[in-house]
Amino acid sequence: MKINLNADLGESFGAYSIGNDAGLLGVVGAANIACGFHGGDPVVISRAILRARETGASIGAHPGHADLQGFGRRAIALAPEELRMSVIYQVSAVAGMARALGHPITHVKPHGAMNNQACADRAMADTIARAVAETDPGLILLAPALSELAAAGEAAGLTVALEIFADRTYEPDGSLTPRSRRGSVLHGSDEALAHVRRMIKAGGIVTRTGEVLPTPFHSICVHGDGPEALGTASALREALANWGHEPVDLPAALRGA
Amino acid sequence: MKINLNADLGESFGAYSIGNDAGLLGVVGAANIACGFHGGDPVVISRAILRARETGASIGAHPGHADLQGFGRRAIALAPEELRMSVIYQVSAVAGMARALGHPITHVKPHGAMNNQACADRAMADTIARAVAETDPGLILLAPALSELAAAGEAAGLTVALEIFADRTYEPDGSLTPRSRRGSVLHGSDEALAHVRRMIKAGGIVTRTGEVLPTPFHSICVHGDGPEALGTASALREALANWGHEPVDLPAALRGA
Amino acid sequence: MKINLNADLGESFGAYSIGNDAGLLGVVGAANIACGFHGGDPVVISRAILRARETGASIGAHPGHADLQGFGRRAIALAPEELRMSVIYQVSAVAGMARALGHPITHVKPHGAMNNQACADRAMADTIARAVAETDPGLILLAPALSELAAAGEAAGLTVALEIFADRTYEPDGSLTPRSRRGSVLHGSDEALAHVRRMIKAGGIVTRTGEVLPTPFHSICVHGDGPEALGTASALREALANWGHEPVDLPAALRGA
Amino acid sequence: MKINLNADLGESFGAYSIGNDAGLLGVVGAANIACGFHGGDPVVISRAILRARETGASIGAHPGHADLQGFGRRAIALAPEELRMSVIYQVSAVAGMARALGHPITHVKPHGAMNNQACADRAMADTIARAVAETDPGLILLAPALSELAAAGEAAGLTVALEIFADRTYEPDGSLTPRSRRGSVLHGSDEALAHVRRMIKAGGIVTRTGEVLPTPFHSICVHGDGPEALGTASALREALANWGHEPVDLPAALRGA
Repeated sequence: MKINLNADLGESFGAYSIGNDAGLLGVVGAANIACGFHGGDPVVISRAILRARETGASIGAHPGHADLQGFGRRAIALAPEELRMSVIYQVSAVAGMARALGHPITHVKPHGAMNNQACADRAMADTIARAVAETDPGLILLAPALSELAAAGEAAGLTVALEIFADRTYEPDGSLTPRSRRGSVLHGSDEALAHVRRMIKAGGIVTRTGEVLPTPFHSICVHGDGPEALGTASALREALANWGHEPVDLPAALRGA
Repeated sequence: MKINLNADLGESFGAYSIGNDAGLLGVVGAANIACGFHGGDPVVISRAILRARETGASIGAHPGHADLQGFGRRAIALAPEELRMSVIYQVSAVAGMARALGHPITHVKPHGAMNNQACADRAMADTIARAVAETDPGLILLAPALSELAAAGEAAGLTVALEIFADRTYEPDGSLTPRSRRGSVLHGSDEALAHVRRMIKAGGIVTRTGEVLPTPFHSICVHGDGPEALGTASALREALANWGHEPVDLPAALRGA
Repeated sequence: MKINLNADLGESFGAYSIGNDAGLLGVVGAANIACGFHGGDPVVISRAILRARETGASIGAHPGHADLQGFGRRAIALAPEELRMSVIYQVSAVAGMARALGHPITHVKPHGAMNNQACADRAMADTIARAVAETDPGLILLAPALSELAAAGEAAGLTVALEIFADRTYEPDGSLTPRSRRGSVLHGSDEALAHVRRMIKAGGIVTRTGEVLPTPFHSICVHGDGPEALGTASALREALANWGHEPVDLPAALRGA
Repeated sequence: MKINLNADLGESFGAYSIGNDAGLLGVVGAANIACGFHGGDPVVISRAILRARETGASIGAHPGHADLQGFGRRAIALAPEELRMSVIYQVSAVAGMARALGHPITHVKPHGAMNNQACADRAMADTIARAVAETDPGLILLAPALSELAAAGEAAGLTVALEIFADRTYEPDGSLTPRSRRGSVLHGSDEALAHVRRMIKAGGIVTRTGEVLPTPFHSICVHGDGPEALGTASALREALANWGHEPVDLPAALRGA
């Protein structure tokens, strides 16, 4: 079975470095590239695109709230017109850069609070999905399995790739356990590997209370920042191969086995 | 003879309103739309695009330095890679929005200090022109007549539209008199009309010392902000028609009489 | 009886002008000066301070969320440490400028969403009030009458000045009707004058359903932006004088009749 | 002989971490704390202040250009009023926070391009020095030895502390070799120690061509970011002690032996 690993990259800003873009792009098959609102600047974005072109990773635009200080992790209530235009702007900026640099984007994945809000709020999810379709109906929407965002992507006529998270636990309703709750983030590659293995075997999301929520998925999200990021991503890639899964880019994962 | 009027628009930001986009778009044939770095935000940009679609004005991306506090009017020395990627990012963002909203851009014109620096510094001009060509080689570069930027556009293989300024005086070398010098900005439509008429008759730029620097030009830049902007633009459009010039959008002006 | 009129000022930013600071400072007795986060920049702030020094208006720091694009009107959930330090930073910046320019601040009033959140959320209100007290325990907290923020100010040992709004309607619980609801903002000076007169006569807030919520108040807030701002403020000042109320600065209004 | 070590700190921003504030504050005797314009945010600033209070390091405000993307390292030409108000605002913000948190600032040192510009441009230097004096005439101005900024500080009536740089080479006129020139930054603690030792023995700045420019100095600047920062600072502190110099805070270094 083919499967994709994805990570958020291109989130450095000016003199501020975050994550290990060059290293992770040697491991993951898809990169979600920040668009300059919650992180990223034109030079940072260009370097992530060029590195992905080298490694063959597929890339996507990773739009977030215009909140550099909060790194896009603070919920902001935008009017539908604001959200729609913010997404079109951000996706267009990174899509145009990627085209100019010879490695076009193939997907879009919202970041942080924008993603979390859209996973729970169907109206926001619809606004985002339609904005992606307006920008380019051929783009894949990468959305958490079982989320409103995934449903909105389908309704907007987009191809939807479903993802699960390697190092985050799940609530009984399929949402991520909030970061503020102890234990919500798994530490160390052993825990993450076990969590992923359980979900692959179960054919769905395994919640922190042990329930299985059946769902297909095409991609596994690993984190790009933090000291453990590269190690966990590498270990997961190796483990997937050992379990018989071929790590591929996002479009290939969607085309499936 | 066909001629174009252009103005900078889309420069409002959030609750901050600047210029009279809706009014001016009833008068000018081409709008240079801010890209969110020196001014503009996604909603403001989208409204300028949609209004231009209504009036039939052609539109262009108007990239500037990432300096909202200085409105892009402060010279900033960027490394070539920074400048190149900044231009590709900004043009891509507005080009993508315009495509999504059904009224694609046809040109690019740098803003404020970025424009001034590029008019005098050939290396900067080359970086900008090549970045525009990388983004879309079919875009027109709108550049001041006799500037290094215009020469760089030709060298990069772009179609170059030349502009003169209705309300700014010129130095003997063809550059604009700096705003800091008294008398550099003409006030009132009478002065601007007389200035334009002199240049049309002379077939070139008329400097503040009365010299003529022969050059073709396809477009006349009017200002979008200030209380006189709309009045001057309207008076100029009417005067041009009375003098036998048909006001058209930028591509039509390039195709000429 | 002595009463104060207050308005938000100093909210322009760079080339972006908002409000009519010079005009309003000829009318109101107290100005809430933006601190550079939701609006304002050092030059704008300094000019508001210097103009207030001329007119004798007392001034206060007007801290808001770090959200220039949203003008501080979008609710943002800050951790208590973030909110505390944001308030200390902002109040310190404007207090220091005012001291250097010879017209020290006498009060603090939170802006927009920060104010609205604090009026309903006692924990946020406590964080803000304590941060003001940490910065300078002699500062007055200007807070809406009947709000959690007013209560928090008392609890933090601050002198609290209570305000009502001239052009906003009230809900039965004493909170402002949200701007999103039709009719929440009164237009024209006649409506505002009638609204204020009712509340003065009733000795409390009059809600949009006609109930009276008894409360003292020391200040009336008028808006600083919008085309009607100066006219409404002037008319209100004149009407108050006609009704026998002496318009004074905020400390004088607190010392009362 | 008493001597001070100083480093730039508090330059992280939101999720973006730069430098090793906690580590360096165990080594240096004075910290220059970013003010939120080129780096730093209220929480980051507060933590630097609180850590300095623990270690006993004296602290100063470290104002820079409002250019987060360029980390304050890009020259920006500000009008004198803009520069003056920017400095008063920034120094006031950090001074007020430090007072509220129980560890008042004792000095000011401009950052990056603002510092470089002021070292060469006496008019800019005067504007900065006078702005510091307006904010608090009791503040020490920490300025490079032999610079226009140091002269401006004296002229403004401020106490001036002179600094040399441990890891930067000097031009024949006493200015720092620009970072763009190869060899301008010394790497590794051995080179920095040798450079400092030469200057201490010579009683002045030793240029890269070996000339001695005699000058007293009270402080040695070490860098706060980069992987070598903490090691170099620690080695230098130890070496100074071995050479018989007592490492002290900035006011103590000025009071001298």
